[in-house]
Amino acid sequence: MKFCPSCGAPVAYTVPAGDTLPRHVCTACNRIHYQNPRIVVGCIPELEGRILLCRRAIEPRYGLWTLPAGFLENGETLEQGAARETLEEARAEVEIEDLFTVYNLPHVNQVYVMFRARLLAPEFSAGAESLDVRLFSESQVPWQELAFATIRGTLMHYFDDRNANAFRVHVGTITHNVPTAA
Amino acid sequence: MKFCPSCGAPVAYTVPAGDTLPRHVCTACNRIHYQNPRIVVGCIPELEGRILLCRRAIEPRYGLWTLPAGFLENGETLEQGAARETLEEARAEVEIEDLFTVYNLPHVNQVYVMFRARLLAPEFSAGAESLDVRLFSESQVPWQELAFATIRGTLMHYFDDRNANAFRVHVGTITHNVPTAA
Repeated sequence: MKFCPSCGAPVAYTVPAGDTLPRHVCTACNRIHYQNPRIVVGCIPELEGRILLCRRAIEPRYGLWTLPAGFLENGETLEQGAARETLEEARAEVEIEDLFTVYNLPHVNQVYVMFRARLLAPEFSAGAESLDVRLFSESQVPWQELAFATIRGTLMHYFDDRNANAFRVHVGTITHNVPTAA
Repeated sequence: MKFCPSCGAPVAYTVPAGDTLPRHVCTACNRIHYQNPRIVVGCIPELEGRILLCRRAIEPRYGLWTLPAGFLENGETLEQGAARETLEEARAEVEIEDLFTVYNLPHVNQVYVMFRARLLAPEFSAGAESLDVRLFSESQVPWQELAFATIRGTLMHYFDDRNANAFRVHVGTITHNVPTAA
């Protein structure tokens, strides 16, 4: 940020009075412009034991597989955001179920929030940001071609919990969002 | 937002090509400036069965009681943010434990994330944003003087789960963050 979004004057990067961290502060109107982490929200759509994955048509990680997920928008709930991203990326309708994984990604100022979900019908196709969308059984998951460590972690926990018949919420921190197996 | 934070030119509020929602788009450099929900993170510090609450020294809800919580900062994890807010508002050190509540507040573009926590010592005092900080047993909680519905909901779930000896993660949506009892 170089200019004040409110008045257009140059901003300084300085610690405001009473604060502990540097902020973008307008040199003219003195407004403080905070910057905060963003939420990436998505889901694990399941139909008859198989999981819906999308092959990315955009960077980063073009051509690799991911779960439907994207930035939460103003005015929507986490569940609405997860369903919207699934509709956009996989042209699929889901019923959002329980919260499943929460990952801190402090190096990119993001928090991932993933829900379990039920794919409502075997109807899906590649949205604008996907090259392909397919259902995968556990043994078919392309573990070597997953886009992100958050997705790999979510899928590993998912199959572990499903096999143990004991789903629970998992919270973790990822400092480099590339799958270790890639 | 009226001016481009990157180049200082006026922005238009318009739907970019390939997008579905209006965004702030610079009329000169064409950069798109997204706005997304923010995360409020906090905890329920417990010591020997009692819960630490802070009496707010700032608006909104000046003079009412709350759990330590505030906006997650860039570069920190949810757990770090919860511990930092507790140190700032209650001058208290905690060990952050399990995730406990997640509340959507779509009307103010926020998501609340609250953790269970262990107060490490009976040492605390009012930080700059608090008038008072005290430990409360379940029967002492000032239910009629709580600042936010998110705090009321978190405390109700907390005592319910503790009494049942069965803590779990609770997810909900609050569309008006004033306690119904207030």
